[in-house]
Amino acid sequence: MASLYTLSNPVFVSYAFYGTVAIVKMCGMAFLTGVFRIGGGSFSNPEDAKAFGVKQVKLDDERVERVRRNHLNDLENIPAFLALGVLYVAINPTPSVALWHFRIFVFSRIMHTVSYQLSLQPFRGIGFIVGMITMMSMAGQIISSTIL
Amino acid sequence: MASLYTLSNPVFVSYAFYGTVAIVKMCGMAFLTGVFRIGGGSFSNPEDAKAFGVKQVKLDDERVERVRRNHLNDLENIPAFLALGVLYVAINPTPSVALWHFRIFVFSRIMHTVSYQLSLQPFRGIGFIVGMITMMSMAGQIISSTIL
Amino acid sequence: MASLYTLSNPVFVSYAFYGTVAIVKMCGMAFLTGVFRIGGGSFSNPEDAKAFGVKQVKLDDERVERVRRNHLNDLENIPAFLALGVLYVAINPTPSVALWHFRIFVFSRIMHTVSYQLSLQPFRGIGFIVGMITMMSMAGQIISSTIL
Repeated sequence: MASLYTLSNPVFVSYAFYGTVAIVKMCGMAFLTGVFRIGGGSFSNPEDAKAFGVKQVKLDDERVERVRRNHLNDLENIPAFLALGVLYVAINPTPSVALWHFRIFVFSRIMHTVSYQLSLQPFRGIGFIVGMITMMSMAGQIISSTIL
Repeated sequence: MASLYTLSNPVFVSYAFYGTVAIVKMCGMAFLTGVFRIGGGSFSNPEDAKAFGVKQVKLDDERVERVRRNHLNDLENIPAFLALGVLYVAINPTPSVALWHFRIFVFSRIMHTVSYQLSLQPFRGIGFIVGMITMMSMAGQIISSTIL
Repeated sequence: MASLYTLSNPVFVSYAFYGTVAIVKMCGMAFLTGVFRIGGGSFSNPEDAKAFGVKQVKLDDERVERVRRNHLNDLENIPAFLALGVLYVAINPTPSVALWHFRIFVFSRIMHTVSYQLSLQPFRGIGFIVGMITMMSMAGQIISSTIL
């Protein structure tokens, strides 16, 4: 049986593209945290505070804590999506169905991130829920393909 | 060489099944956090507190903090297991040996989660350690297959 | 097309080796946390404190908090690298180029971990940035292979 994990499989190609976009977005949170830490002089390590001429660590800068909560929510969702994606490719779904799962997931996570930073509810909640539903749809299809 | 990453390889099928179960369990922690946040009126974002008619954020609700620690422990273990699983399939282990690695890992994580929520030691510790030993067994087999 | 995800593909073998090393290093952080918790009598769960004869939980032990920040930084980076690695194998890079990406990433993360524990800046920052650049190089190559 030919491998499904090649650039000649359109499902794999769309997974590779959207999966990488999700990873780059997630990594962007680390840089945003750095920008807010330096901008507010709010460091959690004494050696960082010292390097930027700040006397004390500051663990309750609201702007930093918000981006950290935002980033943690990514860690709770994006690695799970990436692992589901690998398995989803193996069950050989219809390419357009797979493409829309990947697109909706990545779009929902971008919506979550932006609305978290801007304190926009219920948009952040909708972004989170839509991403979860997309993952559960993938999970359900994988489970039913593996227990039959 | 035929691909090992297909539904005709029993090792891959059992990885896909147990990996997906682990992901669904991990995602469940987010919902449990939501239930406890709403139930206790304990929100970390002012916009969430406001939406539920609560005046202030509350960062020290013990029930919420417990499920968050429980979830974080999943994040420290389950993505690592999922990545090891992909590599473990490639070294083509005996199907029954692989199946028991996956089963024991997922069972140990469910035991960890349940006993964390119920404050049951040493069961939580045993769940954690057994999961780690399972991963280290997979890691050892992968390392020895790749350096030879 | 033959599968690239086999032990006969040198790129896959080096990904499997360095990926597993990164996972084992990341799992090591959990054990270091345990050592510091037990050593300092600093537990976040009352049932753990009780088991070690400590009266109260302690959430601000600096040695424990440092290793937890260190571990969280791994969670922000290593699962992302592992997922990128799977996709990177599919674009069939030159083996020596791939090998150096994997080597530099893992080395940079070990440098990050050690210098975080020893409070050594700018070495921790350099470790973090070099790891990120390596991932963005892999991400860029994947994106350009999938949109063409």
